[in-house]
Amino acid sequence: MKALEPIVVSLIDRSYDIEVGAWTLDGIGERLAALTPSRRVGLVTQPPIDRYYGSRVEAALAGAGFSVVKLVFPDGEDHKNLEEFGRLLEALADARLERSSLLIALGGGVVGDLTGFVAASYLRGIDVVQVPTTLLAQVDSSIGGKTGVNLASGKNLVGAFHQPRLVLADIETLTSLDEREYRAGLAEVVKYGMILSPELFESIERGAAAIVARDPEILGEVIHRCAESKARVVMEDEREGGLRAILNFGHTLGHAIEAVTGYRRFLHGEAVGIGMVFAARLSTQYAGFPKPDVDRLKSLLETFGLPTEIPAELDPSDLARAAETDKKRQADRVKFICVEAVGRTRFEMLATEEIEAAVRTA
Amino acid sequence: MKALEPIVVSLIDRSYDIEVGAWTLDGIGERLAALTPSRRVGLVTQPPIDRYYGSRVEAALAGAGFSVVKLVFPDGEDHKNLEEFGRLLEALADARLERSSLLIALGGGVVGDLTGFVAASYLRGIDVVQVPTTLLAQVDSSIGGKTGVNLASGKNLVGAFHQPRLVLADIETLTSLDEREYRAGLAEVVKYGMILSPELFESIERGAAAIVARDPEILGEVIHRCAESKARVVMEDEREGGLRAILNFGHTLGHAIEAVTGYRRFLHGEAVGIGMVFAARLSTQYAGFPKPDVDRLKSLLETFGLPTEIPAELDPSDLARAAETDKKRQADRVKFICVEAVGRTRFEMLATEEIEAAVRTA
Repeated sequence: MKALEPIVVSLIDRSYDIEVGAWTLDGIGERLAALTPSRRVGLVTQPPIDRYYGSRVEAALAGAGFSVVKLVFPDGEDHKNLEEFGRLLEALADARLERSSLLIALGGGVVGDLTGFVAASYLRGIDVVQVPTTLLAQVDSSIGGKTGVNLASGKNLVGAFHQPRLVLADIETLTSLDEREYRAGLAEVVKYGMILSPELFESIERGAAAIVARDPEILGEVIHRCAESKARVVMEDEREGGLRAILNFGHTLGHAIEAVTGYRRFLHGEAVGIGMVFAARLSTQYAGFPKPDVDRLKSLLETFGLPTEIPAELDPSDLARAAETDKKRQADRVKFICVEAVGRTRFEMLATEEIEAAVRTA
Repeated sequence: MKALEPIVVSLIDRSYDIEVGAWTLDGIGERLAALTPSRRVGLVTQPPIDRYYGSRVEAALAGAGFSVVKLVFPDGEDHKNLEEFGRLLEALADARLERSSLLIALGGGVVGDLTGFVAASYLRGIDVVQVPTTLLAQVDSSIGGKTGVNLASGKNLVGAFHQPRLVLADIETLTSLDEREYRAGLAEVVKYGMILSPELFESIERGAAAIVARDPEILGEVIHRCAESKARVVMEDEREGGLRAILNFGHTLGHAIEAVTGYRRFLHGEAVGIGMVFAARLSTQYAGFPKPDVDRLKSLLETFGLPTEIPAELDPSDLARAAETDKKRQADRVKFICVEAVGRTRFEMLATEEIEAAVRTA
C-alpha cells in the first residue's frame, strides 16, 4: 500500500500523531524510542492478540533497548471492569513502573479503554500509546482519549479523558481479525460518512466489495479518512461539551439494544448498524432527512452483512427506557443525534415516549 | 472571627475559590445553589464526621432545594482503596447521579482523596466540592486537585488530578477534632513557613500558644495564609512538573517512616514533623541551611507536641530504601527537597546511600 500521511491531533500540550500503515508493528521499538527517553514499557494485551503479535512487538521493543513488562488480562468485554483495573495497577506497582514509563495498549477497544484508564490513573497519569488491532479500535476507540471500564449498572460509566501519546494503527493486523468483528467495525466506518462526509459515504459505497475483501490499499485509505474525521471532531471538542456527541450517531438505540439483550447477542458495531438505520428513519420525521438516503444506508450496511432492523421480539418500552439511561441524558430527555442529510447532523432533545413511538413504528 | 477574603485559585477553565470561615457549613446549600444549576448532590463522608455534621449539612442542602444521596464509607485510611472506590461508584450509578450532579467530600484527607478520585472518574468526571473538616485537609489535601487511593504496594499510587469547584473550610469543625489529629495537622502548617515564608514561620512561633488552644481568630488567619500558600504553588505548577514538589518538604523521610512502621505508629503529620527536622539537618550539609534554624524548627514542633527524632530502633537502610521507592524517584536518585533558609527551598538529587548516611548521623 502507498504511504499515508500521519494525522496530527492538535490539542495544545496533549498533541499526538495517528499513524496508519502496514507492517508498522515491527518498527514500534524505534518509533517509541524517538518518543520517550524512558526505556521501560508496560505492554498490556489479551491472550489471542498476544498469540498473534505479542512476541513480534516484544522483539521490536527489545531491539530498541526497551525492557518490557507484559501484562495479559483475560479476553472479553466482561473483563473491562474495576477488578482488572485494580489488578493491572497492582502489577504496574509491583514492577515498579515509574512516572516516565510508558504503557502500550495492544488490542481492540477493550484493551484500549482499560489500558487507557490504567495509564490515566497510575501515579496520577503516565503516557500511553494505543496500538489498535481491530477495525473498530483503529477508526474510533483508540483516538480521542476516552478511556474507561464498565460498572455492574452500565457500560463505560467510569473512566478518564486521557489522550494517548501516539496511535499506531497497523492495518496488517486486520488480516487476523474475525470476520464478524471486522464487519461490525464497518458500521463505525459507515457512521463517519453519515455524520461528516457525503464524499466518504459515496467512496465506501463504491469500494464496498474491496472493503469486504480487506483490500489493503482501499482499507488503508478508508481507515485514514475515518481516523482523520475522528481527530477533527476531537480537536474541536475534546471533552464532549458539544460537537463530539455527533460521534454517538446510531449509538443511543445501539446501546439500548446491547443493554436489553445483555450484551451477548450483538456486537457493538452490529447494534450501532441497527441504531443508525433507526436514527436515519427518525431523522426523516424530525430533521428532514431524505427517505431515499435511509435506503442507501440500509443497503450499504446489508452489503457489509450487518443487521439493520430492531428484532421484533424486543420490547419497545424496554428499549426506550434503556436509551433514556444513556450517559447523554439531560433531565428527562435524551440528546438524540439526527441527520439532516448525509454528512450533516443536528441534535434533537427527545422524550422517552417519542423514542418509544419511533421504535414501535420502525 | 473577622471575615477572610476568598482565595482564588486561578487555573484557566478550572479556577475556584477557597473560602475559610467559621460556621459556614450552615450556608453550604445556598453557596452551592449559586455554583451549579443541578439540584442533585452526592454527600460522601465517614461515620464520625457524619455524626457531628451530617445532618447539619443535609439540612442546609435540603433548605436550598437539593436532593441528597448520602454515602458513608468506613473510617480509617485502610478504606482509601480501590474496593471503596468501586463501591462508591456503583452507588452513584445506582442513584443515577448525572454528569451535572455534584459530589461533596465532607471530612479529612481520606474522604477528600477518595471522593475526589471518584468524582474524577464517574462518567469521566463530575464536579466535586471539598469540605475539609481536619486541619491537615484544610491547609493542604483539599486544595490543588490531587486525588487518589492506596494500592497494596503503596500509598496514593493511583489517582487523578481533579480540581474541586470550591473548597469550603469551616474552622469551626476543628473544635471536634481529636487532639492528636489536630497537632499532627500543625506539622503541615509549619511546613508552609519553612518552604515559603519566614514571616509566616515567625507568626506561627509567636502565636504558638494560641494556636495550640485553637483560638479561632489566629487559627482562621493561619489557615487562610497556609491555604493561600498552597494555592500559589498549585497555580504555578498544577501537575507537579517542578515547583509543586516543594510541598513534599519533610515527606520523603516522612513517608518512609510511615511505611516502615506499617502506617500504624505515626500519623502522617507526625512523620512529616520528624521528616522536616531530618531534611533541615541534611540541608545544613547540602544547602547551607543555618544550624540555629534547625533548632528553631525542632523547638516549634516540640511546642506543638510533635515528635522530631527518628526512632532509634528503625533501621537506617530500611528507611533509605523506603525513601527511594517514593513517587519522586528518578532513575536511582531521589529528588530531595532541601531548605537554604527558612522560606527558601532547593532540590538535591540524592543517592540512597547518601540518605542512609544522613539517617545514621541524624
